[in-house]
Amino acid sequence: MKVSIVNIGDELLSGKTLNTNAHWLGEKISSAGCQIESQVTVKDEENSIVSGLNYCLERKPKYLIVTGGLGPTNDDVTRNVLFKYMKTESVFDSEYWSFLEDKCMRLGKQISESIKSQAIVPKIGEVIDNPNGSARGLKFKKNDTIIFVLPGVPLEMKSMFLQSILPYIIKNIKDPIQSRTLRTTDLTESVLYDIIGKSNYSTNKIGYYPSIYGVDIKITNSKREDVNLFADWMYENFRNDIYAENNTSIETVVVRTCIKKRKKLAVAESCTGGLIGDRITNVSGSSEMFAGGTIVYSNNSKIEILGVNEKVLDQFGAVSKDTAMKMAENVKNMFNSSFGLSVTGIAGPSGGTKEKPVGLVYIGLASDKSTIVKKFNFGKDRKINKVKTSQAALNILRKGLLDE
Amino acid sequence: MKVSIVNIGDELLSGKTLNTNAHWLGEKISSAGCQIESQVTVKDEENSIVSGLNYCLERKPKYLIVTGGLGPTNDDVTRNVLFKYMKTESVFDSEYWSFLEDKCMRLGKQISESIKSQAIVPKIGEVIDNPNGSARGLKFKKNDTIIFVLPGVPLEMKSMFLQSILPYIIKNIKDPIQSRTLRTTDLTESVLYDIIGKSNYSTNKIGYYPSIYGVDIKITNSKREDVNLFADWMYENFRNDIYAENNTSIETVVVRTCIKKRKKLAVAESCTGGLIGDRITNVSGSSEMFAGGTIVYSNNSKIEILGVNEKVLDQFGAVSKDTAMKMAENVKNMFNSSFGLSVTGIAGPSGGTKEKPVGLVYIGLASDKSTIVKKFNFGKDRKINKVKTSQAALNILRKGLLDE
Repeated sequence: MKVSIVNIGDELLSGKTLNTNAHWLGEKISSAGCQIESQVTVKDEENSIVSGLNYCLERKPKYLIVTGGLGPTNDDVTRNVLFKYMKTESVFDSEYWSFLEDKCMRLGKQISESIKSQAIVPKIGEVIDNPNGSARGLKFKKNDTIIFVLPGVPLEMKSMFLQSILPYIIKNIKDPIQSRTLRTTDLTESVLYDIIGKSNYSTNKIGYYPSIYGVDIKITNSKREDVNLFADWMYENFRNDIYAENNTSIETVVVRTCIKKRKKLAVAESCTGGLIGDRITNVSGSSEMFAGGTIVYSNNSKIEILGVNEKVLDQFGAVSKDTAMKMAENVKNMFNSSFGLSVTGIAGPSGGTKEKPVGLVYIGLASDKSTIVKKFNFGKDRKINKVKTSQAALNILRKGLLDE
Repeated sequence: MKVSIVNIGDELLSGKTLNTNAHWLGEKISSAGCQIESQVTVKDEENSIVSGLNYCLERKPKYLIVTGGLGPTNDDVTRNVLFKYMKTESVFDSEYWSFLEDKCMRLGKQISESIKSQAIVPKIGEVIDNPNGSARGLKFKKNDTIIFVLPGVPLEMKSMFLQSILPYIIKNIKDPIQSRTLRTTDLTESVLYDIIGKSNYSTNKIGYYPSIYGVDIKITNSKREDVNLFADWMYENFRNDIYAENNTSIETVVVRTCIKKRKKLAVAESCTGGLIGDRITNVSGSSEMFAGGTIVYSNNSKIEILGVNEKVLDQFGAVSKDTAMKMAENVKNMFNSSFGLSVTGIAGPSGGTKEKPVGLVYIGLASDKSTIVKKFNFGKDRKINKVKTSQAALNILRKGLLDE
């Protein structure tokens, strides 16, 4: 089943905004077993939008997803252009306008006249609810193609797509493409390739997708059984290194496992600056297992807040096995948790020496049984270092939880 | 001057790979003063590529940039398709083949037969050097459009574009487009629109770009003076609400200002879970101003780690003005910093009550002079709440720094 995407917005063309919507939609739609036929980005102008719609519709997709330009300002022209394109009159939805007025009143804000455009609906066509904003979506049918129009703001677009569009696509799909993605971290693409290359399950299409979070292995086939057979083989060969499937993040795995095993976690973050806590608290329900943590960015705070012995810092340095060990043990005691997870490293771009280069990181995990520390070297980029450190730390915790 | 982009690759459509090439090219080309007319992503198939080329060329751009599909494997069809499209014969470049053979020999590798395709060049058209790989680019002319074809690997594409194409575009540009982007937070798109709509600088094109970080206002004009005049008017009307220009983030502004004014910051994060610390430490040099912080996710940790009085929590609750105030003051004392920044809120999706709904957030800022607390309501999505809370907190700190 073919799907096409039209993204509307000058900001996407000018490089002001990265088009994550096309990527996200592509991933969701492909995972559902459909194929993306083409994707076009056009300007906030009638001619441009119409040409993009025509280009995609010529290929007769089953669905056309259009995003962007539904806001209240005069550069948001999508609604008017679509009404004209679909040859439908517009109607003012006074019930929705009252709802918006009430909402503004409750928030203690004055409603702006420009928001009136948000209450305009098509005479022919449907409206799609927006739980996170005032710009509702639209649904039209042109020949055999169903056109969905969504706002460009990613959080609004995503919730609307997941709530109103994806279930519709899945319900109507024929002969879906089958796939499973097994997620690994801490293994390189070539190590995986060398082992997987020797397997006998060659009827599957195998995709290798490396990122800073690890390498994802996507198995695709028209037959579900073949996908499952290969996945079984993968688990036999990489048991403890596959942390999740499809879109599940490692923080989700860690939070769920901690809750299941009734374990509490505390973190002591130096080079990651709060990123590990941020990732954990992105998972709904994490308050059940996350006691909290300290961000000990300076030597002083490592001593005064976390009680790391000054002598340890003097003798071994802030980025050392001994400091990571003390940080993990002390934060565990401080928060009275089952695990203490610590990271200390040189994020860069400056601050490195020959002995301790930028990218050097120590990660400690203290449990009731023991404390372990692992050493890593993640390279020169500050943000990549932080993400890779947080991923490695969560993976060490994940493996630690396997023994509990 | 109009430019269009065609990106070739199944992995871009399926959502496996984020199309950062289109974004990067858009930014470079817009910054040079050209306008991106349209961007199309197509499959690694002849029909799909040809339709994408036709769509873009119909709009008669001055330049068309094509990326992807120049590699040596059998899913790389771009070269053959372009030769056929341009009706040119192919020639085997034996000199380049010898060069590739020598290169492989020097690296102690055996040359693969599949790499022979890399030495095939068009009879009509030019070749673009690739300093980072074996796949060279191509240059054609069709009617009044110059077509550049580059590999899809970002590292190779970028260096080739910067070395061979951007200087060519800049040399030949006429009437470059001028622009400035002013970044605001804490103001809605409609409030901005209502005020800006009354201004007299209507010769400028004004774009409104809302995101969870705030609303960016992009001013575009052919005349630099007109852009600057409008920017001046914006600063007069929204002085303290414009936090930066172009791509500068609010955390960058806060870090730079703290360093300049020799102020140290400590944070006490509840609902953001470490996100504020993470954002601050994304800025290189932040160790000069960031003392650290505590992630006090539970009531217990607010009492035991941060010394918030149990009575305050009992009487007013963890999500309250009084708790936010105590958190800010106590973390400031704990880290002996110039500022203590605190957040406490209900991130959701559960945990809300009628009096304290999901999305309710209090942000506190303690300085040597005083402590202020502000109340917000950010809605129902957990991750949006966290990001909006961190943005509002950084903005309160930014405004606090204005008075120092």
